[in-house]
Amino acid sequence: MLSWVNGAPGEQLSVRDRGLAYGDGLFETIAVRGGRIPLLARHMARLADGCRRLSIPLDLVLIERELQAFSGQLGEGVAKLIVSRGEGQRGYAPPQPCQPLRILQAAPLPQYPAAHAEQGVRLFPCETRLAEQPLLAGLKHLNRLEQVLARAEWQDPECAEGLMRDSSGRVIEGVYSNLFLVVDGGLVSAQLSRCGVAGVMRAEILQQAQLLGLSVELRDVSFDELLDADEVFLCNSLYGIWPVRALQERHWSVGPLTRKLQAIVCDLLSK
Amino acid sequence: MLSWVNGAPGEQLSVRDRGLAYGDGLFETIAVRGGRIPLLARHMARLADGCRRLSIPLDLVLIERELQAFSGQLGEGVAKLIVSRGEGQRGYAPPQPCQPLRILQAAPLPQYPAAHAEQGVRLFPCETRLAEQPLLAGLKHLNRLEQVLARAEWQDPECAEGLMRDSSGRVIEGVYSNLFLVVDGGLVSAQLSRCGVAGVMRAEILQQAQLLGLSVELRDVSFDELLDADEVFLCNSLYGIWPVRALQERHWSVGPLTRKLQAIVCDLLSK
Repeated sequence: MLSWVNGAPGEQLSVRDRGLAYGDGLFETIAVRGGRIPLLARHMARLADGCRRLSIPLDLVLIERELQAFSGQLGEGVAKLIVSRGEGQRGYAPPQPCQPLRILQAAPLPQYPAAHAEQGVRLFPCETRLAEQPLLAGLKHLNRLEQVLARAEWQDPECAEGLMRDSSGRVIEGVYSNLFLVVDGGLVSAQLSRCGVAGVMRAEILQQAQLLGLSVELRDVSFDELLDADEVFLCNSLYGIWPVRALQERHWSVGPLTRKLQAIVCDLLSK
Repeated sequence: MLSWVNGAPGEQLSVRDRGLAYGDGLFETIAVRGGRIPLLARHMARLADGCRRLSIPLDLVLIERELQAFSGQLGEGVAKLIVSRGEGQRGYAPPQPCQPLRILQAAPLPQYPAAHAEQGVRLFPCETRLAEQPLLAGLKHLNRLEQVLARAEWQDPECAEGLMRDSSGRVIEGVYSNLFLVVDGGLVSAQLSRCGVAGVMRAEILQQAQLLGLSVELRDVSFDELLDADEVFLCNSLYGIWPVRALQERHWSVGPLTRKLQAIVCDLLSK
């Protein structure tokens, strides 16, 4: 598959890169359709925010140009962008100056069973909790051991996603998705001020909900509230929206608001 | 400098390695003296524990043999060992089977000012807090953004290390060291059940303290207790022991127990 390192074809990086040593970097997982990137502006905005918060001096104009060229060659698939702070000597202190590393890797679009989007998925209740770290909350950074541990908790293909809570038991997100509740005709989702990844599809859905005139609350969500919700759905930038049909003994049917947003998002992703 | 990848000279790894993608791996920073590794057994024990807890099927016999051969070639210096879960397809699920990656990198022994060990160091009080994640506590894993952020908080060379507290304000460790208090003639150090790195030099000092018949308490430590301590010192596997001489307005002189342990550890490291 297509793979670029710093804008040129390549499949290797230095063992001294800080992305490896410390997870000192960020990534984006990007759907590419017909050579185009449906959520380009949102991916770039999140990347810019991450670079600002981690003080990684990435050339955003350059990376956007590379991403577009890469996507043009890829056509259909997933472009995974990894940005690290680059090589460094021993020690945590960020090198001054630093030369960020840019990696683009292609993968096929994942072939999820059609039933995930149509009938919904069962959520596995992960025991692995998300630690609370406000300095990193919302970022799609390279420190992902919690997700690795959580995803390793189940093999049952019946569960397409896992539910992640924080150390205090609050409902946060899926292992590779964000999570929404429909309550009294409005949307509720976890605020991500202590942990979690602020997904680009989550941002898109928040905006679409506003355009539809729906109420939207970003706040703490308890496990009981999740079980009490009228509808529950997951989202990410690759599959769009999956209804949640089951969690433990609770079952949901796919609700009208989930279907409405799913259609909007599906339309957006296929553009 | 000397660099091996999977037992052979090399300086590159695949962009698809999970060590880069997720920080899905472990490391050891190892002092090498005269081709030998003074704390070899402790490094191997911690690595084995980390592999067990992260379910990384590393060949421990092979890696120990490689480490010894590498150290023999290096002579004097630091051997940094990185172990990752290896390459994977897209997604957090650990590949089955997986082929762990083994990297060994050489660096010169750090040239710290002699005053650090003799007169002690000033601690910078970091604002970056360690998030509480029991599943990862104690491990020297590759998710180190908190240390990167903490180390970036100060440039003042007057401060050789930074103090890290957890989200609840408990005193845990330095950015690249463990921390001990001397209280009523005994040692006190943070228990590392929620966060922190269980350093090999910390383990060595705990054992030496036992041999000396000292009382040792591993427990929660408050900031006020730290300020009240009779002596305070830092340790790691490269520099041994540094007395702490100042933190904010508090000043300590170098105490007798710090000196005694420092001599023991210095002897051990120079063997």
